[in-house]
Amino acid sequence: MKYDIIIIGGGPAGVIAAITAKKSYPEKKVLVIKSVGGGVIPCGIPYMLTTLLKPEDNALGNAPLEKNKIDFKVDEVIEINKERKEIKTKNNELFKYEKLVLATGSNPIMPPIEGIEKKGIYNIQKEMNHLKNLKKDSGEAKNIVIVGGGFIGVEFADELSKLKDAKISIVELMPEVLANSFDPEFSELAKQKLVDEGVELITGEKVLKFNGNERVESISLSNNKQIPAELVILGIGASPNSDLAKRTGLEIGKGRGIVVDEYLRTSDSDIFAIGDCAEKKDFFTRKRINIMLASTATAEARIAGANLFKINVLRENKGTIATYSTQVGDLVLGSAGMTENTAIKEGFEIIVGNAECTDKHPGGMPGTNKLKVKLIFSKQSHILLGGQVAGGNSAGEIINIIGLSLQKRILLTELETLQMATHPKLTPAPTMYPLVTAAQDALR
Amino acid sequence: MKYDIIIIGGGPAGVIAAITAKKSYPEKKVLVIKSVGGGVIPCGIPYMLTTLLKPEDNALGNAPLEKNKIDFKVDEVIEINKERKEIKTKNNELFKYEKLVLATGSNPIMPPIEGIEKKGIYNIQKEMNHLKNLKKDSGEAKNIVIVGGGFIGVEFADELSKLKDAKISIVELMPEVLANSFDPEFSELAKQKLVDEGVELITGEKVLKFNGNERVESISLSNNKQIPAELVILGIGASPNSDLAKRTGLEIGKGRGIVVDEYLRTSDSDIFAIGDCAEKKDFFTRKRINIMLASTATAEARIAGANLFKINVLRENKGTIATYSTQVGDLVLGSAGMTENTAIKEGFEIIVGNAECTDKHPGGMPGTNKLKVKLIFSKQSHILLGGQVAGGNSAGEIINIIGLSLQKRILLTELETLQMATHPKLTPAPTMYPLVTAAQDALR
Repeated sequence: MKYDIIIIGGGPAGVIAAITAKKSYPEKKVLVIKSVGGGVIPCGIPYMLTTLLKPEDNALGNAPLEKNKIDFKVDEVIEINKERKEIKTKNNELFKYEKLVLATGSNPIMPPIEGIEKKGIYNIQKEMNHLKNLKKDSGEAKNIVIVGGGFIGVEFADELSKLKDAKISIVELMPEVLANSFDPEFSELAKQKLVDEGVELITGEKVLKFNGNERVESISLSNNKQIPAELVILGIGASPNSDLAKRTGLEIGKGRGIVVDEYLRTSDSDIFAIGDCAEKKDFFTRKRINIMLASTATAEARIAGANLFKINVLRENKGTIATYSTQVGDLVLGSAGMTENTAIKEGFEIIVGNAECTDKHPGGMPGTNKLKVKLIFSKQSHILLGGQVAGGNSAGEIINIIGLSLQKRILLTELETLQMATHPKLTPAPTMYPLVTAAQDALR
Repeated sequence: MKYDIIIIGGGPAGVIAAITAKKSYPEKKVLVIKSVGGGVIPCGIPYMLTTLLKPEDNALGNAPLEKNKIDFKVDEVIEINKERKEIKTKNNELFKYEKLVLATGSNPIMPPIEGIEKKGIYNIQKEMNHLKNLKKDSGEAKNIVIVGGGFIGVEFADELSKLKDAKISIVELMPEVLANSFDPEFSELAKQKLVDEGVELITGEKVLKFNGNERVESISLSNNKQIPAELVILGIGASPNSDLAKRTGLEIGKGRGIVVDEYLRTSDSDIFAIGDCAEKKDFFTRKRINIMLASTATAEARIAGANLFKINVLRENKGTIATYSTQVGDLVLGSAGMTENTAIKEGFEIIVGNAECTDKHPGGMPGTNKLKVKLIFSKQSHILLGGQVAGGNSAGEIINIIGLSLQKRILLTELETLQMATHPKLTPAPTMYPLVTAAQDALR
């Protein structure tokens, strides 16, 4: 059977690529082949445990595909013949394609720690039944240990802290949580919230061994302590799922990502790769970075989907801005671009500005939170290099103002003279708007 | 007595100009002369009635001036001698200046309607005692009529609707509320919320007469009806307070605003004018517009304050982006730049994109609101001309992403490929981020 466009992978990248392709080329036939029937929305995974009424509320359904008249099937592609432009599946079906999009995602990293195969140790797979089992086990465990203090680890800890009967711990190798995306003064705020929620933080330590018989019972740490654990959640990152691409003979980068050009084309120009399986370059340094975000994946999917047959959505030579947000209790944290630590490590000469204010005004407005912003600028050029924000819910979109500023290479003086909408119930006072005052602070 | 810098006016513009001046030129002596002792934060005025615990929570205090070692006094400047660089006050004091900044604000418009002088009819003055009287009277009135359905009128109505014993009505000349800043489909959302709150909307009608003896008792409308009113609030706009500047011989524009150059210098280069008293030009058309916003005023204050003695904060030839946000009940509305209606009226050839989604994801996350975005682009150049947003609290910062996009003249294709931070508890899904999907919609 022949399709004009075949997309391998049914996560956010695959779905958005399919929809964009169908909208850009309505006459083309599009097929999505997904390996998992019960897919889930990746960023919603932690919230399947307690916040959402039921795990199914986080299902990644097929409605968007059906609505856009895109064919799909659950199967696994085991072979790509790029000369014949043909793929073969596990169910032994053959499909011919004009354009192929690889959106095969990533696999959670499983470190070679003794005992990691024991029952009760979960990595994070984007699959409904796996996560239902995790939810069930988390309801029964008295001691839950999360390995890794990045976004996933911190969000799981925050979510699980609502379980009254379980003790939650995080074991993190670095001295701080969220250390890849935040400078220490922001990580410290997250840490404080987690401690307030009763989470134990064990930082600067390594897991040496998982103990127990069939099921995990405890963990041996590098500080010679042993902590009880009937449930372990591994949140230590993921690795691009590029095996199929490699077998096909496509170029693979050192970090195992599929090498792509500006328009997400692989070394075979009829094959595109998008999302976690494709290699990413940093916005400022053009170095290879290991950033795996649904928002990056969907941005790439839109570019690839529109450009399959002709380049019409121009992608500037931008690279990936690492931009995240997260919430711990009522504290929202966001980061975009470089932290102060990263910028210094990469050799940038910088100036830094800080601002603190309230996120509503006057401060007596109900529901007011503290808001803290840090901006990092290039010293000589005054171009914004990165920003971090901590506050209430509005910080989730404030980080997107900073993200856009990075993508538009905004200058300090432009932020100083920024015009913004302010409102007592919604934003800081115009006299205190923190992107403006942090820019001013950087100059002094 | 001589000061290096004298600022006339103690509102947000005056205060921020003083602070910026002091930080930019620490060796200079700065004096602020304010005509009102008990100043208030302008945008917080509606919320002094019920939301804030007490009106004093909205006071505009002197702490920022004191902290920055800026002298201030309550007095009125009655004369400027620009040849001798000298001012005279009502209390008969003389001060010499090097640089003078006019931040004299605006006066509420009092239309020549019969009976407008009656007791119980309030305009909005930025003065504590006036507003305390308004609060007291609003607690006693059974029928409160707000004249004018712009931001101030709508916010007062929303706020007063919490009073259980009063009937609240808005009388508006135009067919819609908020018609200057929103297209009808957004105005309609505000209208619906107000109706849900029990506010009566009388649109397309004019006030002909205020009836009563000493105090107002009722209002005669152009539809020949008479409605009871023991309290009337006038929210029909304001006019630049440029009398002093006019008497001084400075150039005044047709809309009564003081004419200023790119750096807020008046026709006398040692005298600056900022905020409501200074003339504003539209960002896209360079036409004179009557926009009076604290956020615009403070942006101007920062430019003027830094540039008093030498130009070092560059202001690009931008003009004023009309950018606002407001809240009616739990509905947040924001607007930046041109509406579809304005763009068409001004002769722009446009394309329009719409998007609807939820402001958290998946939709089952607690506290999820609907989010609606409309973007207006130039058809040929694909430059963003304006945007409107309706949603929950996060819409208050989403409109600032749109505002920044306007100021950076963002293109449709840049929004299509935008990288943003998304999070289940904070933002729409990456697959549905409405600035991206509205941009895509505009193309189709």
